[in-house]
Amino acid sequence: MKSTEAVSDLSTILPVLQAIVGPERLSIAQADRAQHARDQSAHAEHLPDIIIWPKTTAEVSAILSCANEARLPVTAWGAGTSIEGNPIPVFGGLVLDFQQMNQILAVHETDFQVTVQPGMLYKDMNKALAQFGLFFAPDPGANASIGGMVANNAAGIRTVKYGATRDNVLALEVVLASGEALRTGARSVKQSAGYDLTHLFVGSEGTLGIVTEATLKLAPLPEHFSAVIAAFPTVEIAAEVVFAIIGSGLGPAALELLDPQAIAILNTEADFDLAVAPTLFMEFNGPSEASLAEELALVESICRENECQRFQSGVGREARNQLWRARHRFFETSLRCYPGQDYRLTDVAVPISRFPTLVAAANEIMTRLGCQGNIIGHAGDGNLHTAIFFPPNDAQARAHADQVNDYLVEQALALGGTCTGEHGVGLGKQKYMLAEHGPVALKLMRQLKATLDPNGILNPGKVIALNV
Amino acid sequence: MKSTEAVSDLSTILPVLQAIVGPERLSIAQADRAQHARDQSAHAEHLPDIIIWPKTTAEVSAILSCANEARLPVTAWGAGTSIEGNPIPVFGGLVLDFQQMNQILAVHETDFQVTVQPGMLYKDMNKALAQFGLFFAPDPGANASIGGMVANNAAGIRTVKYGATRDNVLALEVVLASGEALRTGARSVKQSAGYDLTHLFVGSEGTLGIVTEATLKLAPLPEHFSAVIAAFPTVEIAAEVVFAIIGSGLGPAALELLDPQAIAILNTEADFDLAVAPTLFMEFNGPSEASLAEELALVESICRENECQRFQSGVGREARNQLWRARHRFFETSLRCYPGQDYRLTDVAVPISRFPTLVAAANEIMTRLGCQGNIIGHAGDGNLHTAIFFPPNDAQARAHADQVNDYLVEQALALGGTCTGEHGVGLGKQKYMLAEHGPVALKLMRQLKATLDPNGILNPGKVIALNV
Repeated sequence: MKSTEAVSDLSTILPVLQAIVGPERLSIAQADRAQHARDQSAHAEHLPDIIIWPKTTAEVSAILSCANEARLPVTAWGAGTSIEGNPIPVFGGLVLDFQQMNQILAVHETDFQVTVQPGMLYKDMNKALAQFGLFFAPDPGANASIGGMVANNAAGIRTVKYGATRDNVLALEVVLASGEALRTGARSVKQSAGYDLTHLFVGSEGTLGIVTEATLKLAPLPEHFSAVIAAFPTVEIAAEVVFAIIGSGLGPAALELLDPQAIAILNTEADFDLAVAPTLFMEFNGPSEASLAEELALVESICRENECQRFQSGVGREARNQLWRARHRFFETSLRCYPGQDYRLTDVAVPISRFPTLVAAANEIMTRLGCQGNIIGHAGDGNLHTAIFFPPNDAQARAHADQVNDYLVEQALALGGTCTGEHGVGLGKQKYMLAEHGPVALKLMRQLKATLDPNGILNPGKVIALNV
Repeated sequence: MKSTEAVSDLSTILPVLQAIVGPERLSIAQADRAQHARDQSAHAEHLPDIIIWPKTTAEVSAILSCANEARLPVTAWGAGTSIEGNPIPVFGGLVLDFQQMNQILAVHETDFQVTVQPGMLYKDMNKALAQFGLFFAPDPGANASIGGMVANNAAGIRTVKYGATRDNVLALEVVLASGEALRTGARSVKQSAGYDLTHLFVGSEGTLGIVTEATLKLAPLPEHFSAVIAAFPTVEIAAEVVFAIIGSGLGPAALELLDPQAIAILNTEADFDLAVAPTLFMEFNGPSEASLAEELALVESICRENECQRFQSGVGREARNQLWRARHRFFETSLRCYPGQDYRLTDVAVPISRFPTLVAAANEIMTRLGCQGNIIGHAGDGNLHTAIFFPPNDAQARAHADQVNDYLVEQALALGGTCTGEHGVGLGKQKYMLAEHGPVALKLMRQLKATLDPNGILNPGKVIALNV
């Protein structure tokens, strides 16, 4: 951890920052700094020196302008729910916490759009949008901030149908390292007017600019839906069924894979009574009950042809909500099952035809190395997660967990996929960037960073900072 | 037009280029140069000095490396079907015609993906993909090249359901101005590994790099569909119906607006027998005939509630194909109706709730100024086109046509939209870039251009070149 001495070096800049936001929304208190030292990943914490809670774009502009002049690192902070170390202020400096810049600025109800500030929390926003019959579909599980979701291109169980955050951002307001603010995109769904700045910032993890406003595409809340739970003899067969369902042209609204270890945790910790077997959780939405029944019949026949051992369809609204709540809380639930243990999370994605191969590889290596943990995944879009737990002092188990991560990334790249489907690069995935993108693309990414942030003040140490 | 003298200045570079591709695939012949001097827009032609037909990425790399050293302008050429002057080589130099680099490299049938070379033509590709039951959905009407569609972020009548080209590109191979080749993206649908280089190149109109390979998302060919033709008393009412249909949550696969002038042209030139009235052409796809019937009933009730004068649904496959063929050929058909006349095309897009306002504005100004032409549009996504025809020597009519274009762009921007929904910036929309994006975003676009193409050799004079 950075020592508190560093703060004293900041004596020149502190009064300037205080003049911008006033004394109430700036802190150098140890408790506030400690709250912004780590995300939900296992990456080491690092104390920032100053926390500011901005309220307006003008304040963010003034702060960045001043930080840029002083070469002070600035890291944006949403809800702290990321899991790849994305907002850990590894070079200290200033954390901009957007908690107080969290308003819905406009609901464009008839355009299915919303304009929000970055500190708005995902679940709170969707609660507010429900009265309009609308929701923002990319669902990261955690109650992430919209700014964080945009920065990390977050995704989740609904992405199989509605796309990731990237696919649902129409326009942004961004403050550059220089303090200059700009608007990207438009509210029209079609846009061909010059370079796509919106998508340059989405997924850039606050290293190219800081998002101060986002206009998002919404979807109508489905009126007819049904959840399905189907259990299979092996994870490999379950993965083949995922592939068959997607390949059949069925459009699931969610299609999740959980291995027996994950199911066992749900049974003991979340009060489910599921067969302890590789299981698919699915949801289908339809324009009517009739079309939904047709879809479900096709799903059932695909499952039955693939040795499905238990098929429960027509799960009602309450059971469906319970299912997704449990799936969303799964990570926290599993943490409770391995108290005091350290962990490694994997997040790789492949083309759907390669998903069974990837799942088999994950199962094989975890079994072979005797890893404790589970395999789950947003299977419908080829996105696999593993969670491996180990005692902090067990060097061999830790090495095995790292080996699994390295191996699955290598497999995913060989299968035409990516080292990160939705968690972003943060700190942990930087070492794979050269292998995934090659030297020319990586060089270009670094040139873009140098162009947009010549003094390297924005979330330094992330995405493409590691010298590989 | 540039004189042929310029070619003699190229005496040093010509042998070098010839050594790369051989004498057969390089030309300085007047006839070849003339074929690459203009696209389908009304923008003035300009002769390039040299044409090369590359066959491999390695050739493109070698050519660009050499052109970059010599500061020779390089403009990529697909099918020449663009309509904003996008590939007109306004500074002469070298045109790279991708006609011979037009192979399907891989059909990833089970992933609904295809990897193609940039010279592949859109319609030829979809013909080849039909045997797999798949198609590439962004349909620009013209038989554009895939490279051109990626460069211009092309879209069309299917975009309302399937998105624009941008939404359907997963990965690219690109050659930079330096000659270095890189790969962007991955074949997994989820990707969060660093800066989104793919979308930086999509829509950059060959000014940041030249695409030599693209991996595209495909959609399954719909099995059940029905076309609908509905006529209304005014274009404003027709536009309100568009808004009502989209707002109801119905998911049309196409939703086109044509004004009475456009319908009259179809009746006389394309052998239709339609009511000469503002008309919506629609298509709906469904998982079954039953669900389709439900959708159509809802569409009919919305139309009837809005003074629909003639409602034809359940139009069969042959009539549907005839309808879309006629819509696709509409631009060429209207050109035939105004022989020898000059023309201006408008391409603006707005949020769907603002579409009726935009249509009313277009109708009002064209009527007021007595413009000859028509209003059509990919109404379902708020994208409006007008075509205005005038005798080349009628200065007032030309000024009126320009006035309509300026006015509709101004209206679209005020309504939260864009100066170009799908034709790109090319030459003609550069003058609106400052108004649409503001000075900071425009400066950033120029910085990106300078970073990626420091010598300004790639399609110079386009997108952000105009000093506004």
